[in-house]
Amino acid sequence: MSHDEPIAEDLTRTVLARIAATPDERLREVMASLVRHLHAFARDVGLREPELMAAVRFLTETGRTCTEDRQEFVLLSDTLGLSSLVDELGGAGAGGATPSTILGPFYVPDAPLRASGTSIADVDLGGEPLLVDGEVADTAGRPLAGAVADVWQTAPNGRYDVQDPDQPRHNLRGRFRTDAEGRFSFRTVRPVSYPIPDDGPVGRLLRATGRHPWRAAHIHAIVSAPGHRSVTTTVFDAEDGYLGSDAVFGVKPELARTFERAPGGGLRLTERFTLAPLAPPAQNERPMAKRSSP
Amino acid sequence: MSHDEPIAEDLTRTVLARIAATPDERLREVMASLVRHLHAFARDVGLREPELMAAVRFLTETGRTCTEDRQEFVLLSDTLGLSSLVDELGGAGAGGATPSTILGPFYVPDAPLRASGTSIADVDLGGEPLLVDGEVADTAGRPLAGAVADVWQTAPNGRYDVQDPDQPRHNLRGRFRTDAEGRFSFRTVRPVSYPIPDDGPVGRLLRATGRHPWRAAHIHAIVSAPGHRSVTTTVFDAEDGYLGSDAVFGVKPELARTFERAPGGGLRLTERFTLAPLAPPAQNERPMAKRSSP
Repeated sequence: MSHDEPIAEDLTRTVLARIAATPDERLREVMASLVRHLHAFARDVGLREPELMAAVRFLTETGRTCTEDRQEFVLLSDTLGLSSLVDELGGAGAGGATPSTILGPFYVPDAPLRASGTSIADVDLGGEPLLVDGEVADTAGRPLAGAVADVWQTAPNGRYDVQDPDQPRHNLRGRFRTDAEGRFSFRTVRPVSYPIPDDGPVGRLLRATGRHPWRAAHIHAIVSAPGHRSVTTTVFDAEDGYLGSDAVFGVKPELARTFERAPGGGLRLTERFTLAPLAPPAQNERPMAKRSSP
Repeated sequence: MSHDEPIAEDLTRTVLARIAATPDERLREVMASLVRHLHAFARDVGLREPELMAAVRFLTETGRTCTEDRQEFVLLSDTLGLSSLVDELGGAGAGGATPSTILGPFYVPDAPLRASGTSIADVDLGGEPLLVDGEVADTAGRPLAGAVADVWQTAPNGRYDVQDPDQPRHNLRGRFRTDAEGRFSFRTVRPVSYPIPDDGPVGRLLRATGRHPWRAAHIHAIVSAPGHRSVTTTVFDAEDGYLGSDAVFGVKPELARTFERAPGGGLRLTERFTLAPLAPPAQNERPMAKRSSP
């Protein structure tokens, strides 16, 4: 081994050579980069055997904490900023579309289709009433009829339905279809800040690294329309105290909104979602490492 | 954002700033390096959201595959070369001691203390008889009395006791104490090459990356003695066909041995294990990144 070479560099070369025959080109590229960075990390910190075993125990417990309604590895990715980074790498909000944000671990794909103007709160758990007037348009400003906005949020107790035995399934979730003018509306309650689930290994890691588990108050939305690129986004309460320290690095300042006080009481939010048209595949591909194939 | 800057570099800085107050100095150092390398990996390959979700599913399944007798995350670390790298970083075999190797996922800490000269095979599963004559000495060549050699290996069917309902617990495992001359011996059967458990997510990853799951035939040993640094090592069969492509990168050529044919039939191996004395802590610390504390 040369003195100029990092410790065990020949081992890294051996591992890279072993995976060089990976048939799938993309998997080969991802795995080679993963091995290089994983080994560089271990070298940089001089990773010790008891630390590797602590990591193994942490990851094992993270896997065991996952249930149908809780994805602890998504939480881990979120709290390390990886989910938001992947969102940015995907070209979030390019071309005038509404900026995207992370999905988070509490999305449920089968929320009920509700009639425009109705409430997504199926039980009264208190909270300040909020009326949301939504509009979906394309990047040229034309309203999109027949678009679908799939929204979800926590109850005033800071919990999503899937975390809370006191809420019926699909409480504070709903899908709404836009009318001919691209509009929809729904009634709800003001979202509140809430701690991400911190009774598992990710919560322990947050505490060990001196961090709080709070997310700034928000309403999630996935907005889609035929012929357009769907956007996964979030509307944040501009008055929330955790906007600057969101535990999952999910806040984009341009998505923060001040809820207006409605004359008859309660709050009101008017929000426009903008979708980019689906371009031909060659132009629509997300930025990524170049492929060598034609 | 400057054009010279990688995408979302400000996000990486935000995450690093958030963990900068980690009270434990070593954890702060490890986590900061982990975040930097994890984000650099995602940027280098332009990691996409469906790929991140595939990784989440893979890690979740890896956690769920772990049982009392199977550690799938250790297998993952082993097959990515991380375990062997950590072993190298620990200064394996420095100062004339027997080179160390990875522990592997099949070590069981409570193997029975057996009398020197007896067999570690509690049932007859075939295989070529092998007599191992061991010796434990310090780096100055002095025999170490009262040292303990904890050995374990697969049966001729390629399985460890913990993987095989046909073997009693602790079959082909044993701890041996050295006599006044630092010697011990035991009877066993010739170890065979075997596939690491490949019916789980790690096995799928091996297949997807064009790799086989085979380990070169070997006998594990952890050798310890009071006042000396323990060594976790492995003796490999020099005639094994997988020496050059061991699935977990665990082979060190200097640990390969040709088993001699004994005149009365069967095979014989004479092996010396060398332990370094425990130095004062300051000199004994493993190589690692410098700490800023005095």
